[in-house]
Amino acid sequence: MAGRKVLIVYAHQEPKSLNGSLKTVAVEELSKQGCTVTVSDLYAMQFEPRATRNDIVDCLHNSDEFNYGLETWEAYKRGGLSDDLIEEQKKVQEADLLIFQFPLYWFSMPAIMKGWMDRVLVQGFAHEFPNCYDSGLLKNKLALFSFTTGGSKEMYAKGGINGDIRYLLWPMQHGIMHFCGVKVLEPHICFAPEYVSEEKRKEMLLAWAQRLKTLWKEEPINCSPEWYFK
Amino acid sequence: MAGRKVLIVYAHQEPKSLNGSLKTVAVEELSKQGCTVTVSDLYAMQFEPRATRNDIVDCLHNSDEFNYGLETWEAYKRGGLSDDLIEEQKKVQEADLLIFQFPLYWFSMPAIMKGWMDRVLVQGFAHEFPNCYDSGLLKNKLALFSFTTGGSKEMYAKGGINGDIRYLLWPMQHGIMHFCGVKVLEPHICFAPEYVSEEKRKEMLLAWAQRLKTLWKEEPINCSPEWYFK
Repeated sequence: MAGRKVLIVYAHQEPKSLNGSLKTVAVEELSKQGCTVTVSDLYAMQFEPRATRNDIVDCLHNSDEFNYGLETWEAYKRGGLSDDLIEEQKKVQEADLLIFQFPLYWFSMPAIMKGWMDRVLVQGFAHEFPNCYDSGLLKNKLALFSFTTGGSKEMYAKGGINGDIRYLLWPMQHGIMHFCGVKVLEPHICFAPEYVSEEKRKEMLLAWAQRLKTLWKEEPINCSPEWYFK
Repeated sequence: MAGRKVLIVYAHQEPKSLNGSLKTVAVEELSKQGCTVTVSDLYAMQFEPRATRNDIVDCLHNSDEFNYGLETWEAYKRGGLSDDLIEEQKKVQEADLLIFQFPLYWFSMPAIMKGWMDRVLVQGFAHEFPNCYDSGLLKNKLALFSFTTGGSKEMYAKGGINGDIRYLLWPMQHGIMHFCGVKVLEPHICFAPEYVSEEKRKEMLLAWAQRLKTLWKEEPINCSPEWYFK
């Protein structure tokens, strides 16, 4: 799979964390395969999560009433988005595979990563009606959500106190990635690493490296309600 | 319902937006009832969404390996959280009802509001195992998610292209509010206000004001998988 390009969007404050190690394992394993790997280390970049007028560098289309979605769409078309967004969009454009690496915060991604979604996946770039879902503008790309949880696998089972882990994947995998036309690979979940032994955490890293070895042979999930709520 | 306290956590950049008007309608109607209403206007406050070491003002419990959840828990107990978090926690503590007012961004709340959840609802303050879900530390409070969408009601129907709108409420209502013990009222959803007439938008504001008149008589939803995925 030499020559493939991978963007890892990574959101953890601590390089020594399991998330940090999972990110490093992915960089190493995919590089070994001959892939070009780029990392957006959101905390290290102090990535701005807030969707504001600052994202448009020139004049507004309608300065009387600010509409973020409309203004960023217009700014995208005329090349008037802020540099940090253009930079991230370039990375996305070039990537064959997007890996999102993060600790689950409140049944979702941390705000800094949500801000990356809110700000980078602008209309015109990632989708433009009717080009959404299977005809989204980022089709022919793959995405994989790789994350750690606080709760155990049992807590995230169907009938468990947190409900099936797949329930909370719907907004991220279907609502964001599928909406933009991106095909979704099975998520990679490390349950409750803080409550297991160092030995177990090492096994988690090995399992991730192992999965990455054959990742390019995987089939995307069928991203429809049945997968999530069956 | 005079004397009740309401906190409106509001995330829109533009006061003239429908979200801005919905927020104003709620302030006016609830004040008229004799409630004390506080607004956290997140964009106006330039609220920080990123969960970082800056949220702990004094020394870290373990400075060798930064663990945000653990450090904020410890800091909460010794009174070492940053002032902006203490301020928001005070507002939450005093409130009988939390209203979240926002435009839906990517099947969820905007990053600035997700950051409010990530940073304010600290362990020890909002939950502390085994005090979660029905015994969460914020029990006896109510929450209501009031939001606008880009897509139409038909697109968010069961079998519609976006799937049932309830699917995406699971992480917010169950994963955050219910987890902290907060009881959840029916969401208030204004579908696709950008695609309807000025007349229709006025009706949306009236409908919200009307609902607020009898809000305190409403029963919370049964926040279990059946409500979301039945």
